[in-house]
Amino acid sequence: MKRFAFTMGDPCGIGAEIIVKALKTQPEYIDESVVFGNVELLKHYAQLLALKTPVRSSASLQDTKAGFVNVFDSLPHKVSDFPIGKASKIGGECAFCYFAAALKEAIDKNISFIATAPLNKEALQLAGHFYAGHTEIAADFCKSSNFAMLLWSDKLKAIHATTHIPLRQVFSDLTAGRIIEVTSLANDILKKMGYKTPRIAVCGLNPHAGENGLFGNEEHEIIIPAIKECIERGIKVEGPIAPDTVFLRALKGEFDIVVAMYHDQGHIPIKLLAFDTGVNITVGLDIVRVSVDHGTAFDIAGKLKATAGSLVKAVEIGKKLSL
Amino acid sequence: MKRFAFTMGDPCGIGAEIIVKALKTQPEYIDESVVFGNVELLKHYAQLLALKTPVRSSASLQDTKAGFVNVFDSLPHKVSDFPIGKASKIGGECAFCYFAAALKEAIDKNISFIATAPLNKEALQLAGHFYAGHTEIAADFCKSSNFAMLLWSDKLKAIHATTHIPLRQVFSDLTAGRIIEVTSLANDILKKMGYKTPRIAVCGLNPHAGENGLFGNEEHEIIIPAIKECIERGIKVEGPIAPDTVFLRALKGEFDIVVAMYHDQGHIPIKLLAFDTGVNITVGLDIVRVSVDHGTAFDIAGKLKATAGSLVKAVEIGKKLSL
Repeated sequence: MKRFAFTMGDPCGIGAEIIVKALKTQPEYIDESVVFGNVELLKHYAQLLALKTPVRSSASLQDTKAGFVNVFDSLPHKVSDFPIGKASKIGGECAFCYFAAALKEAIDKNISFIATAPLNKEALQLAGHFYAGHTEIAADFCKSSNFAMLLWSDKLKAIHATTHIPLRQVFSDLTAGRIIEVTSLANDILKKMGYKTPRIAVCGLNPHAGENGLFGNEEHEIIIPAIKECIERGIKVEGPIAPDTVFLRALKGEFDIVVAMYHDQGHIPIKLLAFDTGVNITVGLDIVRVSVDHGTAFDIAGKLKATAGSLVKAVEIGKKLSL
Repeated sequence: MKRFAFTMGDPCGIGAEIIVKALKTQPEYIDESVVFGNVELLKHYAQLLALKTPVRSSASLQDTKAGFVNVFDSLPHKVSDFPIGKASKIGGECAFCYFAAALKEAIDKNISFIATAPLNKEALQLAGHFYAGHTEIAADFCKSSNFAMLLWSDKLKAIHATTHIPLRQVFSDLTAGRIIEVTSLANDILKKMGYKTPRIAVCGLNPHAGENGLFGNEEHEIIIPAIKECIERGIKVEGPIAPDTVFLRALKGEFDIVVAMYHDQGHIPIKLLAFDTGVNITVGLDIVRVSVDHGTAFDIAGKLKATAGSLVKAVEIGKKLSL
């Protein structure tokens, strides 16, 4: 069976720590995974956290050994090279290279999926990689433009029609075509996750979903035509629903997922309800990429206070999606 | 002691029902309040809900009697005149007139504060009153332009720099001056509510609060200058904070209130956490107006399923603010 990949993300953050914690609580991961990251840092945290399994460096994906934590480290550095808790060029460069290496293996179908620990955007930019984040790097490597960010928690799920752009740009980027695309992606992934007929809610863009044109026309011009088309395609979808009530209705069980029009519309409710236990899924790629839904947490990096719940949940979903 | 006013809102909604329920659970309200609404409808729900106190019609505010539910009804209608559960011209007209009458008495200082049951905007417009809601009617009657909508719950509070406008219009309406105004209003009201030094968080407008200009410039051009000015004025304020993390930080106790840049930014988290128990306060007026944070609930109107929790909470806050 193919292994899945953990990527360490920014070595100056909590990536190595949460990977070791996940390996401790879920010992089955040891022979199921390979870590793309810094081997010294992983050994460091394995010692601090008393992980009994020895950590070894793998020269390639073919070179893995059962009973070891296998680390594929393309950029050897000492632990002391990393300014823990700070955004740095070295941190950004490593995060990018670990993820790039894993992406190549995933695209070549040598690994089943990638579970990413967080990177820091500022560090990424310091290293000259001008991406908004993992999602955009993955889409670039996979040459995909039909992808979307989905936040998954047990309580509430949202997929986003737009994400890392200025709010002002939503008015030019949001199209009926994009909403149809994202609603279809949501429908597909929920089916893959076992929902027979996913019940999808589409958010309005404006307060009260525009209140019949009183507070904006995007609902009538863009969102309603998109919903009609989705219904014609056989998707069970409802909307546009007032953004300030749709998430409560979903939470109460009326919908399986909400299609959010912009980043914060979906992120605010899910991070409020499921911070540290949510999973970020990039859908619409040829590969499966799942991620924690939190950042590098530089403020607690190196303090052994991080929790691995979101990462474990990400692996759980990655396994289902890569079947 | 002055009485406070309940306004019934749209008679076709759940207004009369929740007022009777509040009078039942809080019998002290009977001699503390006067109801601006339809007397027949109130009698109807009093009977259905077995309220023992008799309901009477007051000819004026001077004509109230202890031991009765006093109803000031400026537009006599029979119960059967109202299409329960539907948006109608008669419902909109009544809701407007009840509130207008209460506002005049509040402005003349004949009542201590107004606790409003919900109206329906569509009905309001059918009756030719082109307001976005109670807040805007109150501001108009009070001739105030320096006001804001605050959502209050025990867990989380938010005040809004903009509200019932198309999202697109936020980019023209949001100014540093407005953010300073709203932050000051938040500071004043929290002090009045007993917070010695209110800790205020200001949201960013863009994803990740603009990520240093990468996802928008409004933080640098508008929000940061406003925050600096507030700090100079001695207000304890922090920001701009990423919209998708600030509410969790406030919920965990780091801030007493969040200044939201637009309607849904503040409404999504509070309605998710405190639906049916939140209170909507119009701050910055010469009068005190508090309200339930839910709508007319036409779907359950007349079915005796509504709860009065939000209305009772509103009265509790109204009493404190009108001291």
